[in-house]
Amino acid sequence: MKGYTGRILKIDLTSGKSFTRTFDESYVRKYLGGQGFAVELVYHGVPKGTDALDPKNVLAMSGGAFNGFPIGTASKVAWASKSPATGTLAESIMGGSIGPELKHAGYDALEIVGKASAPSYIYIEDDTVDIRDAGDLWGKDTRVVPETLKMRHGWDVKVACIGVAGEKLSKIAGIDCDDRQAGRAGLGAVMGSKNLKAIVVRGTKDLVPHDPKAVLRLAYQYQRIYQAAGSWVEDTKYGTGEFLGWVNKERGVFPTRNWQESVFNEREKIDPYYWATRYVTKNKACFSCTKPCGKLFEVKDGKFKGVAIDGIEYETLYSLGAACGNADVESVARANELCDLLGIDTISAGVTVGFAMELFQRGIITEKETGVNLAWSNASDAVPQMIELMGNRKGFGDVLADGVKVAAKRIGKGSERYAIHTKGLEPPAYDVRGMKGHGLAYMTSTRGACHLRAGFYAPELVGKFWKWEGIDRFSAVGKGPMVATMENFMCVYDSVGLCKFSRGFYLIAKLPEVLEAITGLKFTEDELLKIGERIHNMKGNFNAREGVTRKDWLLPPRILEDPIPEGVSKGHKISVEEMNLMLDDYMKARNWTSDGVPTPEKLKDLGID
Amino acid sequence: MKGYTGRILKIDLTSGKSFTRTFDESYVRKYLGGQGFAVELVYHGVPKGTDALDPKNVLAMSGGAFNGFPIGTASKVAWASKSPATGTLAESIMGGSIGPELKHAGYDALEIVGKASAPSYIYIEDDTVDIRDAGDLWGKDTRVVPETLKMRHGWDVKVACIGVAGEKLSKIAGIDCDDRQAGRAGLGAVMGSKNLKAIVVRGTKDLVPHDPKAVLRLAYQYQRIYQAAGSWVEDTKYGTGEFLGWVNKERGVFPTRNWQESVFNEREKIDPYYWATRYVTKNKACFSCTKPCGKLFEVKDGKFKGVAIDGIEYETLYSLGAACGNADVESVARANELCDLLGIDTISAGVTVGFAMELFQRGIITEKETGVNLAWSNASDAVPQMIELMGNRKGFGDVLADGVKVAAKRIGKGSERYAIHTKGLEPPAYDVRGMKGHGLAYMTSTRGACHLRAGFYAPELVGKFWKWEGIDRFSAVGKGPMVATMENFMCVYDSVGLCKFSRGFYLIAKLPEVLEAITGLKFTEDELLKIGERIHNMKGNFNAREGVTRKDWLLPPRILEDPIPEGVSKGHKISVEEMNLMLDDYMKARNWTSDGVPTPEKLKDLGID
Repeated sequence: MKGYTGRILKIDLTSGKSFTRTFDESYVRKYLGGQGFAVELVYHGVPKGTDALDPKNVLAMSGGAFNGFPIGTASKVAWASKSPATGTLAESIMGGSIGPELKHAGYDALEIVGKASAPSYIYIEDDTVDIRDAGDLWGKDTRVVPETLKMRHGWDVKVACIGVAGEKLSKIAGIDCDDRQAGRAGLGAVMGSKNLKAIVVRGTKDLVPHDPKAVLRLAYQYQRIYQAAGSWVEDTKYGTGEFLGWVNKERGVFPTRNWQESVFNEREKIDPYYWATRYVTKNKACFSCTKPCGKLFEVKDGKFKGVAIDGIEYETLYSLGAACGNADVESVARANELCDLLGIDTISAGVTVGFAMELFQRGIITEKETGVNLAWSNASDAVPQMIELMGNRKGFGDVLADGVKVAAKRIGKGSERYAIHTKGLEPPAYDVRGMKGHGLAYMTSTRGACHLRAGFYAPELVGKFWKWEGIDRFSAVGKGPMVATMENFMCVYDSVGLCKFSRGFYLIAKLPEVLEAITGLKFTEDELLKIGERIHNMKGNFNAREGVTRKDWLLPPRILEDPIPEGVSKGHKISVEEMNLMLDDYMKARNWTSDGVPTPEKLKDLGID
Repeated sequence: MKGYTGRILKIDLTSGKSFTRTFDESYVRKYLGGQGFAVELVYHGVPKGTDALDPKNVLAMSGGAFNGFPIGTASKVAWASKSPATGTLAESIMGGSIGPELKHAGYDALEIVGKASAPSYIYIEDDTVDIRDAGDLWGKDTRVVPETLKMRHGWDVKVACIGVAGEKLSKIAGIDCDDRQAGRAGLGAVMGSKNLKAIVVRGTKDLVPHDPKAVLRLAYQYQRIYQAAGSWVEDTKYGTGEFLGWVNKERGVFPTRNWQESVFNEREKIDPYYWATRYVTKNKACFSCTKPCGKLFEVKDGKFKGVAIDGIEYETLYSLGAACGNADVESVARANELCDLLGIDTISAGVTVGFAMELFQRGIITEKETGVNLAWSNASDAVPQMIELMGNRKGFGDVLADGVKVAAKRIGKGSERYAIHTKGLEPPAYDVRGMKGHGLAYMTSTRGACHLRAGFYAPELVGKFWKWEGIDRFSAVGKGPMVATMENFMCVYDSVGLCKFSRGFYLIAKLPEVLEAITGLKFTEDELLKIGERIHNMKGNFNAREGVTRKDWLLPPRILEDPIPEGVSKGHKISVEEMNLMLDDYMKARNWTSDGVPTPEKLKDLGID
């Protein structure tokens, strides 16, 4: 079994010891790599009932099976842990190039357990694995930390790290590397809880595939397809926000002012068609990507002068923009920068601030408590101010620092009615009242409200994908099996390490030949989808074990009760009946109990213990 | 000997027959690939005294040795022929992906001879090689031709073609493929003279390297270096014009108004720092490039509404911009588009129009003859108008259609004094009065004034490169051996097929391991540079045989007589003494006669017959 290092590096921060263990073909056949490996390590490594911030929690990281080979866009690395935000098994996928680097250092995955006695960082250079003192890095931001460590260890190391928010155990803290983030579900707090500030990797070993000739041939074919099909690429100019205007106007599902509206009338001011031409000065590619969507956004003057970030991504334009009624793109950029530097997820942070702003609008909270004028009209100033307070747990920021679910509990006074989340995770930039299957996906996503676990926004917004055509986004009928299938699809994608922006070019049926070239192992499309199903079921079973069942999945009141007030999706909501219909369909499709618990037969069928 | 197909496809358009011949290791050891192969085919294939437009002339094309493998930026393909513009053996290097495609079709090189009896195109799909009727394509532009042929043969074929200018045998006509051009030295006219409108290639064969594992390892290392060293890439945002402002102001060598000035005071209006943010809507990468510099420049309204081109490149900003006193970037884009569609080289075309504009300024020609107001103040309109006339050989355009040297002869009346060229090729965007070694390179370049045969602009403008430091751009001393060495360097680069924008990362010493991985053949750095020397000497020997010797190399009067009038390079020119000093030094370094003829000893030493 080639193409893998066959080794997993386990590091116990409590004892300071590390050791590697090997895996064989059967492991690959079950879990594939990337997300599959990371989920397996958490699934089997975390004892029942472990608190997410307990030293016994596992933080896993694994590069996808294609990582390190010149297959177009195969740069993605998966992080996983029990989430402090949701109490579920949550993964977060990151671009950049630390996945390929780790594989070249000789490891397919990292499994980090325990808690260091003092702030530390892990240094990995091939067979050298050290735990080093990070006393000088503690309290530092995600720009200073890699700069310092690259000065120390060389410009070519990869540095994953947390900001202050992770140190302060914010449930919305993420992990940063190369200006890319594993932002969602609070994995940065898991690092913080382990006194782990950073992970430094330099890999110089060979990574040998089963059939190098075939890998080269397929690498060429992938390149050729990208070249011919996508010869002019908008991603490189506008990034992921390229379709914002279309989602806002033609679909009317761009959530605005904490989901009180679904059309942001000031859309033009935050649309990349506006700002890319004014603020973007350079681009950046992830490993093995010839259509780089990374962009350096720089503010050259005004009150936000000096802001320089990799962004602004579509989701962030929503969360720190529309969701907060913030049409000042420089303010969005500054808030994005603060999120990155302090190490908090932009989606969760923005949705939480928008939530607070609606409470402010309704008089549930006032400037007396918040210390900041949270009026929508003051968004340009309020959003960066609140983010800074949240990341540092200062003032009212401490109330908001753990996301909407916790904040609503802390604030009380009926504020839960306005808290938008599923399973405790704040939703991304698609108003599911106008795309009901995607609403189901928010519920079934094992890590809480997510657009990427099923990626069902694309089929519903476009109306077709893969084997489906004529999809009606306003209908709840038939969505259960489709969402379940797409979840399996995406588990495979995250396990091979391809960027999801490739999924239009490369459906699952295209992957077996690449896998065979790399590993020597033959898979059918169905076998891959079954691996995806296994991964999803492991997450589902873990979550059920931790007590997170259907009752915790449900959509928030706004989705169920408040119809979309304007635009082309006006009048739509997801009724409780529709929600239950979709959930029932989904459970049947998965052969799970109606409570959302994988049945013993299903687990047995998938070989899950 | 792996990594090569080992086959050269010869097509005789007169007989309609094609056949392949094979080559072995000794051929690779002598000529390497890409430029080396293409030059060899012309060197040995073109009988002495053959007119460039005679059917006996050879048009060769060859993908570099790295083409088709995922080595970063290894996309470059070399075209070569006896040039109608210069009468010398000239190559022109093109990006995109037709080189990799041809190799996957089973050929390292194409050798095209003869003349079809009627307009034709060549269709190559692996072992299928047809000559097909192009009657419906004749007279069509370089956008319509590939569109038509892709409709016919499938969206994934690569199409190289000529525009109307090539059909009309313009000595400044180029070859187009994938919005990229082999623009220089009139190779499009060679295609036209053969009644050859297009070459269509689809390659589906495997291309197997000697050590696929090592290729993958090195591909990874190249990627890793690009990723770490150039993580934020300005090329992707501003393209090749990124340093225009610096060349113009900090170095004062940006030739303006037909080289009457060297600082373009309206530089800001054509600087990509201005226009990239306003006109560029998408980007595009060549094969295996993760820092794409290709950009789609679109004009959305105004008199040039509808213009949409891949550009604007640095050289074109000079030639159709500053050299014509044209500060209207939309006009530059339109003129660029006309050059591309009609199939003429933007450098030669722009310099020729600028030349006519100076003649107009001096009253040597008037609107009566030109039919167009060629006043500098009318540049925005005049430049696109003249380009359209030139490409179609209409009106005064017919006088200019073959470049400055021919135009000056046609116009007479002392106009030669203002014709800027060496060997009949119009110069690129570096005023060599302020960079004297680069002036030598304009003379010694086998295809006439060129920035890329030695790439000596970079060492002189920056002051250091490779093994040299403290280079004084205003000095003529010691430049001969340096230029000769850099010419050898660049011959190697064009033979492996790397983009020259990689040369700062990958000096020649880095290439042997890649070559060994691909071919199994071991080379030292010195051996590679000796191959480069061989290639250059073949071109030099061919040129001497055709009677092009030192007397034909000399710099034009403006460089020798008119000092730069303003800016940081003010007062500088290249004196006749300096010119001769540099040439003498160069001839010595090359062991050529003082007339510029390779000595028998040198030819023998290099194994050139």
